[in-house]
Amino acid sequence: MSISRQQLVQSRLPAQLSPLDEAEAFAPSNIALCKYWGKRDAELNLPINNSLSVSLGHLGTRTRLQRSPDGRDRVWLNGIEQDSSGDFAAKLLAFIELFRAGRVLPVHVHTENNIPTAAGLASSASGFAALTLALDKWLQLALEPTVLSAFARLGSGSACRSLFDGFVEWQDGIHDDGMDSHGVPLEARWPGLQIGLVKVATGEKAVGSRAGMQRTLETAHLYQSWPLQAAADLEKLHRAIETRDFALLGQTAEQNALSMHATMIASWPPLLYWQPESVAAMQRVWQLREQGLALYFTMDAGPNLKLLFEARDRAAVEQAFAGLEVVAPFGD
Amino acid sequence: MSISRQQLVQSRLPAQLSPLDEAEAFAPSNIALCKYWGKRDAELNLPINNSLSVSLGHLGTRTRLQRSPDGRDRVWLNGIEQDSSGDFAAKLLAFIELFRAGRVLPVHVHTENNIPTAAGLASSASGFAALTLALDKWLQLALEPTVLSAFARLGSGSACRSLFDGFVEWQDGIHDDGMDSHGVPLEARWPGLQIGLVKVATGEKAVGSRAGMQRTLETAHLYQSWPLQAAADLEKLHRAIETRDFALLGQTAEQNALSMHATMIASWPPLLYWQPESVAAMQRVWQLREQGLALYFTMDAGPNLKLLFEARDRAAVEQAFAGLEVVAPFGD
Repeated sequence: MSISRQQLVQSRLPAQLSPLDEAEAFAPSNIALCKYWGKRDAELNLPINNSLSVSLGHLGTRTRLQRSPDGRDRVWLNGIEQDSSGDFAAKLLAFIELFRAGRVLPVHVHTENNIPTAAGLASSASGFAALTLALDKWLQLALEPTVLSAFARLGSGSACRSLFDGFVEWQDGIHDDGMDSHGVPLEARWPGLQIGLVKVATGEKAVGSRAGMQRTLETAHLYQSWPLQAAADLEKLHRAIETRDFALLGQTAEQNALSMHATMIASWPPLLYWQPESVAAMQRVWQLREQGLALYFTMDAGPNLKLLFEARDRAAVEQAFAGLEVVAPFGD
Repeated sequence: MSISRQQLVQSRLPAQLSPLDEAEAFAPSNIALCKYWGKRDAELNLPINNSLSVSLGHLGTRTRLQRSPDGRDRVWLNGIEQDSSGDFAAKLLAFIELFRAGRVLPVHVHTENNIPTAAGLASSASGFAALTLALDKWLQLALEPTVLSAFARLGSGSACRSLFDGFVEWQDGIHDDGMDSHGVPLEARWPGLQIGLVKVATGEKAVGSRAGMQRTLETAHLYQSWPLQAAADLEKLHRAIETRDFALLGQTAEQNALSMHATMIASWPPLLYWQPESVAAMQRVWQLREQGLALYFTMDAGPNLKLLFEARDRAAVEQAFAGLEVVAPFGD
């Protein structure tokens, strides 16, 4: 399976790699306003639909690669060494191997997330984005950002959006090798746009996104309507961003997220990432909105809500959601 | 609006009505295993898809019609007189007017539900079914059951299924007047089939089914896939009933209900009938199923779960759900 991905990466690399002693990179987490749900190619993580996200500024992953002083591959996550045969280390090292391709270049990987791993904030997205950027620096590749974005996609689909700040569209692309399926940053910025992270649960998910997508595609009749909906939502989001129409942005993002969850709920076995507290938080958002607050939410494949609002409403939102972590992707 | 419905009813009635002093009828509530969600004709309550239900035996509505001793139309619900301009009485009297059509026949209506009104157990279904049966007796019409079923549908779509016991298919029909859109009882019976009513909430719904359906049709992209899913589920349910395949019955009913809710969740504004406790109850069902219990659920447009299981598992299910009301549609 990994041969074609490795060949793809190798085709853009020099024959000789010149690793530095060490290199470090940061990539932000990103939150999709139009979701990625469903692959047209599971090997290359090529999506069925375009998606659109906003990057989370300082929240994300910092990854440092160090030429191994002990001749072994070793992986640390938030300062704790990981079992090299465990899921986390194995995935990172398999990704690094796409670049090493059998060359003897043992490495120490130090990954620091300042977001809860696997809690619905896509740490795998910022993780593979930061790793890709760190590899580019460590191996002195100086690749184009769009190429790096396509490479990050091989680690985790949505990672291709975390290569950039601000609004990013991930275009599905048409090429078989997927090299035209990468993030494209939008020029528009939206100072005052705020994202509030409502933490319902921070544990590992019972069903990962990859398996969840696959189950939805194979068993949910309702998924058939998803690609057209995503296309319509994408167009609405572009319009909302161009015209600074916050109600349109919020409504489109919320309906898109709920529709994605709807396709999961219609799967078999049913895939419900919500906890009772997720429903309580949604109800609170709807109640506040009925009272006139311009508050919307989005959700990824997990139980947590990400609130969408504007800076002028921050105090009201924080009052309603105690302990809310607020991110301003474009500054306050 | 009501002229065409009234003409439809009048076309099957004698010119002279001969009311008895009083008449009484009972109709069971019914629970759909393949749901009715979406109308092709809102005036006549003609559905977009066939549905299939099981009637709830002794749970339902008993309605007594009495030639009015005081010359006025009056309505009682569970012994309490209703405001005649209120929603409940107005709907019943408008339905009765389809039969009276201007004739002076004042009536007292005594309706007794032994199920919680508007709590997700379709009391409007058994209510209009019982009223139709009582009208047939009171006015000595002696109409065919399928005609009565089509008439009951004019009051509330799913009422057409409550005309019969056991499994009932509501066929969508093709005629403009909808007289071929009525319940058809299935011969097959399933002794041992049990339904457990999990009451999450018993209050009135914020959005009624009629408005909910309409919103889903108009705003949910995912609804486009619903009619084909319902058709596929109906075929699976027939197969499950013919072969007494309980896993197939339960799986199909649960996925069908969740898919219907998914179309609501994908609507705008979002239509979520679930409460946090609904999610907790679903999670309990899934946990028990993982432990090997053959337990499934279905839900109507409300927060309550209806558990599906077989008699041999009743003790285990009752242990997991305290205070469960269990109905055996075909006897124990």
